[in-house]
Amino acid sequence: MAYHEGGHALVAAVLPDVDPVYKVTIVPRGRSLGVTQFLPQDDRRNYSRTYLMERLAIALGGRSAEELALGDITTGAENDLQEATKLARRMVTEWGMGEQTGPVVYDQSSEGPYLSPPVQEEHARVYSEATAQRLDAEVEGLIAQAHQQARTVISEHRDALERLAQALLQEESLERKQVLAIVAGEQPAQGSAGDEKAPQHEPVQG
Amino acid sequence: MAYHEGGHALVAAVLPDVDPVYKVTIVPRGRSLGVTQFLPQDDRRNYSRTYLMERLAIALGGRSAEELALGDITTGAENDLQEATKLARRMVTEWGMGEQTGPVVYDQSSEGPYLSPPVQEEHARVYSEATAQRLDAEVEGLIAQAHQQARTVISEHRDALERLAQALLQEESLERKQVLAIVAGEQPAQGSAGDEKAPQHEPVQG
Amino acid sequence: MAYHEGGHALVAAVLPDVDPVYKVTIVPRGRSLGVTQFLPQDDRRNYSRTYLMERLAIALGGRSAEELALGDITTGAENDLQEATKLARRMVTEWGMGEQTGPVVYDQSSEGPYLSPPVQEEHARVYSEATAQRLDAEVEGLIAQAHQQARTVISEHRDALERLAQALLQEESLERKQVLAIVAGEQPAQGSAGDEKAPQHEPVQG
Amino acid sequence: MAYHEGGHALVAAVLPDVDPVYKVTIVPRGRSLGVTQFLPQDDRRNYSRTYLMERLAIALGGRSAEELALGDITTGAENDLQEATKLARRMVTEWGMGEQTGPVVYDQSSEGPYLSPPVQEEHARVYSEATAQRLDAEVEGLIAQAHQQARTVISEHRDALERLAQALLQEESLERKQVLAIVAGEQPAQGSAGDEKAPQHEPVQG
Amino acid sequence: MAYHEGGHALVAAVLPDVDPVYKVTIVPRGRSLGVTQFLPQDDRRNYSRTYLMERLAIALGGRSAEELALGDITTGAENDLQEATKLARRMVTEWGMGEQTGPVVYDQSSEGPYLSPPVQEEHARVYSEATAQRLDAEVEGLIAQAHQQARTVISEHRDALERLAQALLQEESLERKQVLAIVAGEQPAQGSAGDEKAPQHEPVQG
Amino acid sequence: MAYHEGGHALVAAVLPDVDPVYKVTIVPRGRSLGVTQFLPQDDRRNYSRTYLMERLAIALGGRSAEELALGDITTGAENDLQEATKLARRMVTEWGMGEQTGPVVYDQSSEGPYLSPPVQEEHARVYSEATAQRLDAEVEGLIAQAHQQARTVISEHRDALERLAQALLQEESLERKQVLAIVAGEQPAQGSAGDEKAPQHEPVQG
Repeated sequence: MAYHEGGHALVAAVLPDVDPVYKVTIVPRGRSLGVTQFLPQDDRRNYSRTYLMERLAIALGGRSAEELALGDITTGAENDLQEATKLARRMVTEWGMGEQTGPVVYDQSSEGPYLSPPVQEEHARVYSEATAQRLDAEVEGLIAQAHQQARTVISEHRDALERLAQALLQEESLERKQVLAIVAGEQPAQGSAGDEKAPQHEPVQG
Repeated sequence: MAYHEGGHALVAAVLPDVDPVYKVTIVPRGRSLGVTQFLPQDDRRNYSRTYLMERLAIALGGRSAEELALGDITTGAENDLQEATKLARRMVTEWGMGEQTGPVVYDQSSEGPYLSPPVQEEHARVYSEATAQRLDAEVEGLIAQAHQQARTVISEHRDALERLAQALLQEESLERKQVLAIVAGEQPAQGSAGDEKAPQHEPVQG
Repeated sequence: MAYHEGGHALVAAVLPDVDPVYKVTIVPRGRSLGVTQFLPQDDRRNYSRTYLMERLAIALGGRSAEELALGDITTGAENDLQEATKLARRMVTEWGMGEQTGPVVYDQSSEGPYLSPPVQEEHARVYSEATAQRLDAEVEGLIAQAHQQARTVISEHRDALERLAQALLQEESLERKQVLAIVAGEQPAQGSAGDEKAPQHEPVQG
Repeated sequence: MAYHEGGHALVAAVLPDVDPVYKVTIVPRGRSLGVTQFLPQDDRRNYSRTYLMERLAIALGGRSAEELALGDITTGAENDLQEATKLARRMVTEWGMGEQTGPVVYDQSSEGPYLSPPVQEEHARVYSEATAQRLDAEVEGLIAQAHQQARTVISEHRDALERLAQALLQEESLERKQVLAIVAGEQPAQGSAGDEKAPQHEPVQG
Repeated sequence: MAYHEGGHALVAAVLPDVDPVYKVTIVPRGRSLGVTQFLPQDDRRNYSRTYLMERLAIALGGRSAEELALGDITTGAENDLQEATKLARRMVTEWGMGEQTGPVVYDQSSEGPYLSPPVQEEHARVYSEATAQRLDAEVEGLIAQAHQQARTVISEHRDALERLAQALLQEESLERKQVLAIVAGEQPAQGSAGDEKAPQHEPVQG
Repeated sequence: MAYHEGGHALVAAVLPDVDPVYKVTIVPRGRSLGVTQFLPQDDRRNYSRTYLMERLAIALGGRSAEELALGDITTGAENDLQEATKLARRMVTEWGMGEQTGPVVYDQSSEGPYLSPPVQEEHARVYSEATAQRLDAEVEGLIAQAHQQARTVISEHRDALERLAQALLQEESLERKQVLAIVAGEQPAQGSAGDEKAPQHEPVQG
């Protein structure tokens, strides 16, 4: 669990375009076993393809950390995989961001703002099986690409993951500032609540 | 955002058969981040294939401008892609305007006037998977053709796009007259509201 | 619009087995932009395949006239294409009139009298995808055959179409007698209302 | 119409295992344009494959007569084709009487007695597309076989069809006894109502 | 009809693992034209594959007897085929008893006890068309195997079928004891009601 | 039945990562013919792929014991196969644990905690037939792998299965302690109720 959440936080801290983590914890809340929160940089609602690809990589950071640190995988990644798949599918079907598919919308069921779940689609899909097959390949391709990116980041910062996991086991929760310090190579310091709103943001480049 | 809206306005100003823009703004309204309004030339309801192809190109002008000016693409084109896909699908399935498909109607669900969303289809589609595959290829072909047209227009008027984006960042909104002047090469003038109903219309040929 | 309605009227006047037009107008009524009315020869309800093929050709007369006279196509053919497709599909699936398919009924959803819309089908289709593909090919084949017939008629009476269109632009509406006279080569006379019930019927052979 | 009804009556009179016609008429009743009634031999409810194949041939007798006598086909066969298709489909899917398919039931939706319409099926079909394709081929094969049988009977009794049609045009309705006499070669006699229950039955062998 | 019911009884009497018949009759009851009742050996609810295969063979005994004794087939086997298909499908999809398919459940719609009809499935099937095709082949394979077994039993006891049919025509109903005696070669005795609960059970081996 | 329940208990006792059995019985309860209960090691809700694969093997232990000890298979494995299939499908479609499929979620219908049945899916599946086929192959592959593991365990402890079955026939129910002793090679002792909560746990390695 500590490795899983540490993986999310590590990838978020390293990748350049995405929001840094706001707080990461291994204290279970409701049905969630751990949570990694992100600090929104601003209130924008227009996201670039580059930004979204990094969001995918962060979502796959937990699973990737399990693979590299534990050599086994767990059901703990269920929510991550759900969100990553939904996001990748929206990129392909609603925002025209697939590799092969052009600027065409394949699913008109979702009208809500970003990250809201698509409306339950009650009508049969209008596109063909051949198109559905291409869309699946696109979605899996985006996920595979992000998975590879997350694994690369974690492999290159394998010791930082170890430090993050140890700190999480000791502290249970880490603030954004602590995460960045640990990733940068410092020993995990004592958690000092109240730093949450610190504006400085120096992501470590991978 | 300025490039995105500028792209719509530029393509609309350049293409000969379509209505010129009425007003373009980057002030967010409701869920929309920016709006490009078109001046209807008359109250006709019978549209030619040539006219509709230019409508598709305008819809893809925002995405094309992002690609050419920013080198990245954003989720801001979602509504454009939805409308373009709907329009292209209606051209193919309801108006017999596909390249390969003949004057056959493949979808009887829409009965309303132009640009109203098709009625939620509750019955299973009656045509075959093979036909659905052909229809998808037709729709994607029309979109790709319009996408190419939009990119060509913007490439050939790359400096006009730059001027439009700068003017939008300064003025936030541009009237039809201002857009035409900027595209024609004039420096962006101060916005003078009240000119909206000016009848003259001299689109610049690409 | 005048060419479109003129196309319907011309094909109906020329083809031998089908009812001659009763009245043709380019005055918009409700959502329709123009109407071509047919004079039912008698109250029969049993239609031959030959008769129905000519009905298809008349329905495609408007689109064909646009193609040949304007070199562009419009959305004005939407209703024509819908009716032609419905009729061709019924010929193939309900009346066993396809080229390859035998005397088998493929759709049991329609029980009503001729030209009433088929009942909304709520059950999944019972036949296979392979059969659906053959049915689509049959429907498109019938439409293509009728489209070709309409184009041939209009090409061979290209000047009659021109006279009809001019007369419609002048008179806005033409009675059956006027249409036949114009097609026969007379100059368009002044519209004399009250002739509508004239029984004589001398279709010009193509 | 007279040929159509005559075709039904002729095939029923000639084929050995099926009930002879009870009455045939060309007087329209309700939505039906003509009716051919059959005399049930007994109240049995267990039907052999041989009997059902002849029922199919009778149903296709009307269409076959149109083809051979008129050289055109009409919409008048709609009900015949519907019943023939339903019956052939039940033979294949419910009674295991297909040529290739074994004693397997493919459709569990119909529970009622013979010739009652199958219950509206609300569940998705459980068998595969490949099976659906085989079933369609079986159904079309049975229909084609019965169609050929009907055409053979009518070709071999072409003059009897002519006599039946003439008699129907004169008398409008024919009793079973009259039909058998006309098929046997007698000149059409005057219709004598009240003979309907005559027990003698000597079908003419083809 | 006598052959049909005799076929069921004969196969049940000969096969070793299945319950012997309790009573067989050709007196119609409700919509059923004849009934063959089985004596449950005990109240067990856990059935082996061997037992179920013999149940399939009994169900196909009626159709097989028609084929071998009459050379024609009838609609009387409808209920038999329905039950056999349902049972074979459950063997394949719910109990992992197919030849090729492994211990996987393909249909989760049925929760009830043995021989209760599966719950109307309202959700779309979750497995693929390719899997559906394999399942269909498995079901047809089991039915074909049982069909062959029933035909073999009846062919090897062709005279016993004749004696059973004759006895049924005379007596209309036969008790279990009578059936076993007739199959064993005795002449049909007079029916003595009241023997129904006789515990002795000596099935004749095929 | 004794072999069936013995198979479950044996596989659970031998495999290293999974919970040992808590109690096994062949006394029917409700619709169940026998039950094998597992002692949860702790209240964790995060399961590794290794653990889940052993759960699959235990579920297939009953069927495997039937195959190896009886040479026949029964309907008694219905619930086991249902649970194994559901679990394998969730591993593939929700937890990204397939062999070929990547960390992608293919089914968003299930939101509940572990082992709760997936929500009735009312929307059509969004992925393609080709993907459905791959998922089916993955599910069957996991099941086949677990089936093989269960058969290997039982083959290597064939005498322990015999001892377990005999003990179950004598005692009807066995506690966890008794099962472990029997598997370890001891003669079945008398059942001593009250030992159920004994904390010691020494699974025998296969």
